[in-house]
Amino acid sequence: MPFVSRRVLVALLAMALCAVASGRAVAQGDPLPSWNDGPVRKSITDFVARVTTQGGADFVPPAERIATFDNDGTLWCEQPNYFQAIFALDRVKAMAPDHPDWKNKQPFRDFLVGDKKALAAQGEKGLLTLVGAAHSGMTTDQFAKYVADWLKTARHPRFNRPYNELIYQPMVELLGYLRANGFKTFIVSGGGVEFMRVWTEKAYGIPPEQVVGSSGVEKFEIGTDGKPVLMKLAKIEFVDDGPGKPVGINRFIGRRPIFAFGNSDGDLQMLQWTTAGNGARFAGIVHHTDAEREYAYDRQSKVGKLDKALDAAKANGWTVVDMKKDWKEVFPAEVKR
Amino acid sequence: MPFVSRRVLVALLAMALCAVASGRAVAQGDPLPSWNDGPVRKSITDFVARVTTQGGADFVPPAERIATFDNDGTLWCEQPNYFQAIFALDRVKAMAPDHPDWKNKQPFRDFLVGDKKALAAQGEKGLLTLVGAAHSGMTTDQFAKYVADWLKTARHPRFNRPYNELIYQPMVELLGYLRANGFKTFIVSGGGVEFMRVWTEKAYGIPPEQVVGSSGVEKFEIGTDGKPVLMKLAKIEFVDDGPGKPVGINRFIGRRPIFAFGNSDGDLQMLQWTTAGNGARFAGIVHHTDAEREYAYDRQSKVGKLDKALDAAKANGWTVVDMKKDWKEVFPAEVKR
Repeated sequence: MPFVSRRVLVALLAMALCAVASGRAVAQGDPLPSWNDGPVRKSITDFVARVTTQGGADFVPPAERIATFDNDGTLWCEQPNYFQAIFALDRVKAMAPDHPDWKNKQPFRDFLVGDKKALAAQGEKGLLTLVGAAHSGMTTDQFAKYVADWLKTARHPRFNRPYNELIYQPMVELLGYLRANGFKTFIVSGGGVEFMRVWTEKAYGIPPEQVVGSSGVEKFEIGTDGKPVLMKLAKIEFVDDGPGKPVGINRFIGRRPIFAFGNSDGDLQMLQWTTAGNGARFAGIVHHTDAEREYAYDRQSKVGKLDKALDAAKANGWTVVDMKKDWKEVFPAEVKR
Repeated sequence: MPFVSRRVLVALLAMALCAVASGRAVAQGDPLPSWNDGPVRKSITDFVARVTTQGGADFVPPAERIATFDNDGTLWCEQPNYFQAIFALDRVKAMAPDHPDWKNKQPFRDFLVGDKKALAAQGEKGLLTLVGAAHSGMTTDQFAKYVADWLKTARHPRFNRPYNELIYQPMVELLGYLRANGFKTFIVSGGGVEFMRVWTEKAYGIPPEQVVGSSGVEKFEIGTDGKPVLMKLAKIEFVDDGPGKPVGINRFIGRRPIFAFGNSDGDLQMLQWTTAGNGARFAGIVHHTDAEREYAYDRQSKVGKLDKALDAAKANGWTVVDMKKDWKEVFPAEVKR
């Protein structure tokens, strides 16, 4: 052990004890380097200071510092389409050789021959059938492997990077900053819970048990080798979107968040539910305003439509991130995978 | 600050750092004082030593040390009936003055006039209707208050203590011992998730977000005062029992436990799912063998039937706790509430 003075040791010990007692970590440098200075950044750091200042009027004990984040469009990119939908269509193509009957079965036929017009004519039902086929008829372990394998090989059509590198660097910093201040960070997404859990821990530092999402029905079975498996069935169990988000928060977490971030109308009820609680509350929205570095879309977008929630943000004084103005960087330069 | 020698400080700091690094806490005295010495206690401490010894063949990183516990009959008493059923019937009595129509409506009439024979003749469906009435038609906040109020006033018919004092002291110690060794402890119970979350943190040190249970459908609504609420509907959403337990574990936790404890056939699939994973695994069963201090029941019991799971335990070498022999104490002498 190198020489350390007693004074330093006492200080170290006191700091460690204080950090544990108050749930605050010791800051080292700027915890939010990708956020430009301004009212948005300040609204975040002010809120965190208020709820973590012991003895302050708005102090919240660490156990109650629950923060929930939407995923698509809030923590990672969702254009030109939800990444999970792209995964599902890639899966259907990969599965096709094992399903010769799909050549004469809709909507598989139109999709596999690339007849986009005919497929579009089948509407949302056709797409849901394709997505359902990619998410059922296998065990949970097999499905997780499909997702992991896809992330290794698939590339985003515009950025030519693996999809799980298209996470927002400022939001990754925000998650870490909140955790360093005693928050427990959760994902609450309309996306499939099993699709996300494969990669969220590495990407965001959010472990599987802190991911809330939509789910399909699963069935416990004893396999032919005598080992139990969970089979994924082609039936939706729970849709964690819109009014489903407060329901999902209540069912999975069982506490009302004090901090929530979203980017679309599907997050409106989560933000309402969060801010309706007593005491200090924070609601934030990522507004996609940066066509150059990412995408610019809101009220008219088919994916991630932001209309009512933008009005609610203005009416209630919620924080609205202007991606172009508030973020120094959008995606991480390099990602450890 | 009292005088502390530098040597003591160095030791303290080193211990703290080691505890963080390995995910092991520093033991102080016997962490399991209510467990008698013997093969059962040894099977627990041996397992924990195996999975926490860094560099050992069976070492498991702290993030993967997931432990799941059934609640009724495993962490607290479940006789003469599931405590949640007793709560529900007490609630129906309390609600009756606001429901004059129940006087002429079955099964409420038979129950309220105390006609046990007529009520029994209506079978399980009658009981479920009563339980359903006690769990629906209110907001989630109101329901939590009903549970908290009931715990303050209701007393167990035999032990004359509040129901949440009838927790098993050895199991409370086991939960703490596992957490001190870097485990994350979860409840995975057939009981209602919202019934449990009101009191599990104080009783067991298990926070709401680590409680998995059965749930009813809930609906997000904006109340008359403009504030959002979650209304509890009279429809079952998910039954976290039997084959539902691995499904619930997968949906809520998203990782397979390495350690699981139950007491009845409703826990069989959770124990199968746990032990079918790779690496070191622990499965335990509380066998109720102590009619004097608690209750003695297994294969023939209507509540907490232990038959197939007892056979499976013998066939697979799972740990079976003989309550009479293995536990020095059953309930805590005093409980801070």
